[in-house]
Amino acid sequence: MSSERLIYLPLGGAGEIGMNAYVYGYGPVDAERLILVDLGVTFSDMDGSPGVDLIFPDVSWLHENKDRLDAVFITHGHEDHIGAIGHYWEKLGVPVYARAFTANLARHKMADRGQPEEAVRTVSAWPEMTEAGPFRVGFLPISHSIPESAGLVIDSPAGRVIHSGDFKLDETPVVGEPFDPDLWADVSKGGVKALICDSTNVFSDHPGRSEASVGPEIEALVSAAPNMVVATTFASNVARVKTLAEAGERAGRSICLMGRAMRRMIEAAITTGVLQNFPKVISPEDAASVPRENLMLLVTGSQGERRAASAQLARGKYNGITLKEGDLFLFSSKTIPGNERGVIRIINQFSEMGVDVVDDSTGKYHVSGHANRPDLKRLHDIVNPHMVIPNHGEHRHLREHAKLAADAGRASIVAVNGTMLDLSGSAPSIAGFVETGRTYLDGAVQIGALDGIVRDRIRMALNGHVVVTVILDEDDEPLGEAWCELKGLPEMGRSDAPLLDVLEEDLTQFLGRAKAKTLSDDDKLEGELRRIARNTCRDEIGKKPEVTVIVSRLS
Amino acid sequence: MSSERLIYLPLGGAGEIGMNAYVYGYGPVDAERLILVDLGVTFSDMDGSPGVDLIFPDVSWLHENKDRLDAVFITHGHEDHIGAIGHYWEKLGVPVYARAFTANLARHKMADRGQPEEAVRTVSAWPEMTEAGPFRVGFLPISHSIPESAGLVIDSPAGRVIHSGDFKLDETPVVGEPFDPDLWADVSKGGVKALICDSTNVFSDHPGRSEASVGPEIEALVSAAPNMVVATTFASNVARVKTLAEAGERAGRSICLMGRAMRRMIEAAITTGVLQNFPKVISPEDAASVPRENLMLLVTGSQGERRAASAQLARGKYNGITLKEGDLFLFSSKTIPGNERGVIRIINQFSEMGVDVVDDSTGKYHVSGHANRPDLKRLHDIVNPHMVIPNHGEHRHLREHAKLAADAGRASIVAVNGTMLDLSGSAPSIAGFVETGRTYLDGAVQIGALDGIVRDRIRMALNGHVVVTVILDEDDEPLGEAWCELKGLPEMGRSDAPLLDVLEEDLTQFLGRAKAKTLSDDDKLEGELRRIARNTCRDEIGKKPEVTVIVSRLS
Repeated sequence: MSSERLIYLPLGGAGEIGMNAYVYGYGPVDAERLILVDLGVTFSDMDGSPGVDLIFPDVSWLHENKDRLDAVFITHGHEDHIGAIGHYWEKLGVPVYARAFTANLARHKMADRGQPEEAVRTVSAWPEMTEAGPFRVGFLPISHSIPESAGLVIDSPAGRVIHSGDFKLDETPVVGEPFDPDLWADVSKGGVKALICDSTNVFSDHPGRSEASVGPEIEALVSAAPNMVVATTFASNVARVKTLAEAGERAGRSICLMGRAMRRMIEAAITTGVLQNFPKVISPEDAASVPRENLMLLVTGSQGERRAASAQLARGKYNGITLKEGDLFLFSSKTIPGNERGVIRIINQFSEMGVDVVDDSTGKYHVSGHANRPDLKRLHDIVNPHMVIPNHGEHRHLREHAKLAADAGRASIVAVNGTMLDLSGSAPSIAGFVETGRTYLDGAVQIGALDGIVRDRIRMALNGHVVVTVILDEDDEPLGEAWCELKGLPEMGRSDAPLLDVLEEDLTQFLGRAKAKTLSDDDKLEGELRRIARNTCRDEIGKKPEVTVIVSRLS
Repeated sequence: MSSERLIYLPLGGAGEIGMNAYVYGYGPVDAERLILVDLGVTFSDMDGSPGVDLIFPDVSWLHENKDRLDAVFITHGHEDHIGAIGHYWEKLGVPVYARAFTANLARHKMADRGQPEEAVRTVSAWPEMTEAGPFRVGFLPISHSIPESAGLVIDSPAGRVIHSGDFKLDETPVVGEPFDPDLWADVSKGGVKALICDSTNVFSDHPGRSEASVGPEIEALVSAAPNMVVATTFASNVARVKTLAEAGERAGRSICLMGRAMRRMIEAAITTGVLQNFPKVISPEDAASVPRENLMLLVTGSQGERRAASAQLARGKYNGITLKEGDLFLFSSKTIPGNERGVIRIINQFSEMGVDVVDDSTGKYHVSGHANRPDLKRLHDIVNPHMVIPNHGEHRHLREHAKLAADAGRASIVAVNGTMLDLSGSAPSIAGFVETGRTYLDGAVQIGALDGIVRDRIRMALNGHVVVTVILDEDDEPLGEAWCELKGLPEMGRSDAPLLDVLEEDLTQFLGRAKAKTLSDDDKLEGELRRIARNTCRDEIGKKPEVTVIVSRLS
């Protein structure tokens, strides 16, 4: 038995916020039986991954060790924990376990990608346990900004591990189970080997505020609004959507949900019983005929997404509704870093319409779904584990969280994606490193982040693209002149002649004087033409573009 | 005389933060004599302007009316007020007036672009006035986050206007003149027609804090640091650089400035006498031999700029210095929206090295240079103008600022770039609209924001680029097959064959069946080839790329 070990291996989410994927294993070295916790995505941006639709963790290692994998467990339904399930299930081929609401969302994800919905199995909360190889796994309810979030109790012959999942300590969460410190203490009392714990808010020094605290503020705001009220939040924050809807209802307003995600989430929450007594909603068609002072829209697009309802309302009309001077638009949400530009664009568009925008800058209309520093300390104390392994966070968050644990005398370590830890002993030790990274969903195709494809796109965006075409006859003699096509480049350069003309002249001159040895050698010829094109552009327009050379030989 | 009027026309900075440029005019309608206040730049980003070096306001209108322009006045030396002066001076050809420190920076800008430094004329602060056409203009000292900032007193036959420039109300600004409410009241007591007023911080509800308030906090932090200390702030915030340097000196540390902008600014401040008693600094070469606990570096790159000193230190070594576990890095600065990713990247890189990073999240180590809402109200009350014209801000800022003024019973209006106001009456009225926009500096060339060049780059970044080449003989018969080059696109598509092969096959098949009428018509042939290439890509990889078609005819 001494050669068996308990391992932990983050493949995504450790060293970043997003695309969570954590492997646990137990058994003989390099033959451990494995389970996967969460399988999320992260979102692309123009700076690093233009044109990319979604970003996944690279699960090659898991795929190679697929025969050792017994199950996937999903802690909750946020995209960064569940979003890759439909895309990757085929590669893994094992059952996916989740609680009812999360399972409902996971089945949608499977169906969207043509995968079997029945692979997703609904489990009940603790004390139910699911067996998976040497593991027994239970879902321990914990509060978060989505219903039915759960920490996982992971038992193996090496002892009990608790994986917090994303969480906050909210004893009045409006929707879903309140955080129950007695339950968590009870589950932990036999001794917990390791707490693998959410780190995203470790730099927030004040205790987290309850979801219930925003209700009165929102109600006051909505009841005082003289005209139409529109509010946005994350669709998955069902508690917030309920709070907003109830504030509207109490103010005598009809409630209308707009945006596909908003309707799907509320439907899933009602279907699975996590949401009760949601105010009656009207359709967008009916909404158009309700007097604006009696209407409240709850819309998608809190992050300024260009196609979401909020952005469309900001650009003009959506579902027959147009906002007007004196209407109120509420961001009951925070802006995720990187999304500022999109959100600010919307706010200014509303400003131009005369719409009054209220955001979370006062802290009154939004609370975070993650545990702040004092909450993390409190959970450490309740669970009282031998070690704390910070997960879900950038390096700075993991490091700070590890320090927090160490300050209280608990063993801790910073383990980023690809770091395999051995949790068998009294402190975590590094068991090895596994190659990890990111995979991009690009249109219909998965590409590697380091394939060079996206790098080429970024270069074309920064430098423009010149295509040089040359035709050579059977004797390797240039047939006519070189000619060029420009894309993303200015027409005129320094010499006040069209850049195209200058380029073609320089290239054609080169062809005239080029030696037979160069003209007969594709690589050499291409290299020379590329060099000349880049130098001419540098002289003419002060930048060196990407150059594609096409040499056609009539032979 | 009644046909003469006083006009105000923002060309940049009104409806955005950045690239300030404001025209004032006085005289007969459409023949007013003009002055320009500030001539700034804004910075490009990957989302909207990839590859662009700098963004300028479009000054075409001013260029067309150049014979009516008498002078340019620069309120202060920030890039968004002064950055375009070297690029545009040739187009305007009039004297540029500024106070000594600002003039020093402006001359550098002129020299950098090969323009005559003597066009920049140094003026003294109020009560000195400069004549420019029908105007007399005085520089009224006001505090800001750069030395020698000034509001402008602009007198014309229609009365006195005050242009605030960027400002805060700081009576203990560490470097430069304290805000002097008595002076401002005195200048205003004869009656002020209009206050054109900075709006950037109108949503900040608390009164602004003084530059002097960060000194003790920084000193406490630096004196407690056990190892090397590195701090970054905007180089132009000379007061902050001084505070940081003094904190280091008191803690017994040698001070070293790193980054070109940092050294240039301090040099300019010392040369022009605005900075006195700056601690002795050592060279980067000498710094390398100072024990790390006795060293403090002041570096450029507070916004995470990739080439600045902070980013280079975060990636490894800069000027022979490498940071280590236990060193302290202080951001004595805020992150400008849009720059979050770059700053977070650096913080995580430092985290990986074990460097402790302190940022402004506690509010202790940075204060804003702009007037908050209560400060704006206070300036309105001191100046007591008939009208308040909000400038420098996005639409939301201008609108909120106009409301603030209106609430106090002052005439106000939201006037974005291109809106010409007539200030002659008792309230502002719209006199017309002028076409405005943005000009990009792209390498060595100026291009229009709407020229389509940058749009093509963004499209290549999002969709990739396919180049299709076809050669036709003298009889318009295809010579060989069509062939393609891909850039920024995946190699393999859905049919598990190389995308290139599938594309070339589809295109060659088309050529085989194409009618003579199509083959002989360049436009038609290109259109068809483009359509087929896009459709094949959509089927194979789920996205429609940019396509360039090159048809070569041997004739």
